[in-house]
Amino acid sequence: MRGFANRATVEAAWAWIDSAIPAFEHLNTEVINAGKAATRILAKDVTSRVDVPSFARSMMDGFALRSEETYGASSYNRLPFKVVGTCLPGVPFSGHIETGQAVRIMTGAPLPAGADAVLPVENTELDGETMLSLGEVSSGKHVGTIGEDIRIGDVVVHQGRQLRPQDIGVISSIGVSHLSVVRRPQVRILITGNELLPAGTTPIGYQIADANGPMLAALIERDGGEVIFPSIVRDEPDAIRQALLDPADIVLVSGGSSVGQEDYAPKLLAELGEVAIHGIAMRPSSPTGMGRLQERLVFLLPGNPVSCLCAYDFFAGRAIRAIGGRSRDWPYRRVLVRLTRKLVSTVGRVDYARVQIHGNEATPMAIGGASILSSTTRSDGFVIVPSDSEGFPDGAQVEVFLY
Amino acid sequence: MRGFANRATVEAAWAWIDSAIPAFEHLNTEVINAGKAATRILAKDVTSRVDVPSFARSMMDGFALRSEETYGASSYNRLPFKVVGTCLPGVPFSGHIETGQAVRIMTGAPLPAGADAVLPVENTELDGETMLSLGEVSSGKHVGTIGEDIRIGDVVVHQGRQLRPQDIGVISSIGVSHLSVVRRPQVRILITGNELLPAGTTPIGYQIADANGPMLAALIERDGGEVIFPSIVRDEPDAIRQALLDPADIVLVSGGSSVGQEDYAPKLLAELGEVAIHGIAMRPSSPTGMGRLQERLVFLLPGNPVSCLCAYDFFAGRAIRAIGGRSRDWPYRRVLVRLTRKLVSTVGRVDYARVQIHGNEATPMAIGGASILSSTTRSDGFVIVPSDSEGFPDGAQVEVFLY
Repeated sequence: MRGFANRATVEAAWAWIDSAIPAFEHLNTEVINAGKAATRILAKDVTSRVDVPSFARSMMDGFALRSEETYGASSYNRLPFKVVGTCLPGVPFSGHIETGQAVRIMTGAPLPAGADAVLPVENTELDGETMLSLGEVSSGKHVGTIGEDIRIGDVVVHQGRQLRPQDIGVISSIGVSHLSVVRRPQVRILITGNELLPAGTTPIGYQIADANGPMLAALIERDGGEVIFPSIVRDEPDAIRQALLDPADIVLVSGGSSVGQEDYAPKLLAELGEVAIHGIAMRPSSPTGMGRLQERLVFLLPGNPVSCLCAYDFFAGRAIRAIGGRSRDWPYRRVLVRLTRKLVSTVGRVDYARVQIHGNEATPMAIGGASILSSTTRSDGFVIVPSDSEGFPDGAQVEVFLY
Repeated sequence: MRGFANRATVEAAWAWIDSAIPAFEHLNTEVINAGKAATRILAKDVTSRVDVPSFARSMMDGFALRSEETYGASSYNRLPFKVVGTCLPGVPFSGHIETGQAVRIMTGAPLPAGADAVLPVENTELDGETMLSLGEVSSGKHVGTIGEDIRIGDVVVHQGRQLRPQDIGVISSIGVSHLSVVRRPQVRILITGNELLPAGTTPIGYQIADANGPMLAALIERDGGEVIFPSIVRDEPDAIRQALLDPADIVLVSGGSSVGQEDYAPKLLAELGEVAIHGIAMRPSSPTGMGRLQERLVFLLPGNPVSCLCAYDFFAGRAIRAIGGRSRDWPYRRVLVRLTRKLVSTVGRVDYARVQIHGNEATPMAIGGASILSSTTRSDGFVIVPSDSEGFPDGAQVEVFLY
């Protein structure tokens, strides 16, 4: 009960996490409906078995004809064509275009046999069943050729991609209805503390309402995980042991993560599995721990809500994103801004400093307490002060991660 | 059937959309469980009815005592205190601390009556029931005061905010279980085209598989809308009329949006409601239209998939985000990069040019066809060329919106 003997560096904790994540090819996958796959991570390349388009098609509304017959046409030399039919998307012209003939055609409609170009409607006039060409077209003009979008055998989307709306569009267009995507990691939230009431309950006496459970749930959802959060767990060894053993890919334990007598989680993790890191040279969140229990990764997060948020974002979130096939990088947009006053830190420790942003200036928040969660709602983001830095002077340019 | 008489500017279309969106205070709202509210838009300020914390609490593991009694203590002058009890989170010490006494206390536990500070465990030694103080603490040290995080009457989160994980944490800690958020707009997708097979179907003959439906659904989800997409609609006036009248906040019609004979949607919208804009000076997507039908906003999007994506992102997405209380701005991250070759455009028209990015260089895609959806999956983002520009020279710095 004398604090941590040795604190690991943030980099060492990251290295341990990265070593604990399987290679992309070995991540768990599942097959889902392509229409539901946007924002998911594609597990296997998608290769087309069809040409798109699979037939020559018109790119304009106009008239399909033999291009050589338009040569010499102009508004002063209107060349007549007999309109012998109409061609709509999905409804081809059944005949063959002969000399002096044209077929009315719409964008996307299949080009009739015998035609090699489309004369846009803007360059025509109609006179009964006769179309007058007011201009020339060259062979192939306004015709989309077979496979010009996608050819048989093309990889249309590569594995590892977070699927975009247009990827879903392309995949849907080539006859693929189901996709193999990386399975969302199942993340169990284990909130401990006998003083805790369920989130949203009005605090009474010396009981407080849980803030960390719903906050962690939202963070896990953001990072592509699936939340398992049955309820708050009594701060008793048997209850915590059982919850640690319940099924999950990753377990986040909030509270009781330090080295005090009532901090059961580290002892239980050591007993049931392995504590790889316990105590990290950072502020807040120094009592953070991590390890393995059978196939699970377990993160021991401090109960103070700012520390809990910080420890999640530094460590647990990275693991959840990586096991879900996503980028390990911070999920925050970054901006470069100037400090309006100095930001003091201590060499040997990484600092997570909340700042408010006005224009392109950042002001460090005066309140640094790890228990003051409202400091993270009043701030716009945070600055990470590296462990080899004493902080930044007034006016320094710093990188802010925007919440 | 001679093209558009006048094309509106992109700016005019944006101005029409913005004028059609109610002020924030008049957007539709709904009350939901706070635990499900992350990423939603808060409709009303959340004000606290409680102090957080509602009692003085320890910020450290250590001993609660009367601070003046530690004066003079050091490792060379260990001052003894009788340990008279223990204080855990949620479990207060029932007595009153008297002269020469201390109570073992954990982080988060309520400060016992009579104590005014916490001596950290690191500065103590235990000898049976006696604690030896190895250092001094001043009054109030390591004690969190009532309301230091949040006071009664504080607005903890302001209306209009897209709720962050930590906002949900703070809200959960003040006894608020339900929130008023902006209702997600109900967006009906109306895909027309007799040549279309449902998404994911293998194309056969002159039929093609729908790409726009699932792409639009993913875009709408991204922008906070709720998708209504029952099925593809026959390209027949009665079917389209009925679908336009089905309930929705916003209707997106894909296909048949131009001025051809088979383009029913603009005529039906004019008949049933109002066409405000039809034809826009841009490429692709110039046949885009928009208007109102009773309380609905209706967007007529071209059927060509690249045009559909572009028209969505320029216009429909803006309206969906705004009706959902979100930022009207583009939902894409932006980077400044150099062009590896010139990008040619035409004065009088806005161009949407797909580019590939390597390092900090952008290469315009050679394929510009509005039907080549794979050009948007092979590219990394797009450049918008303003209507007063002839394009950008080789080496110019341009802003790219990253997909």
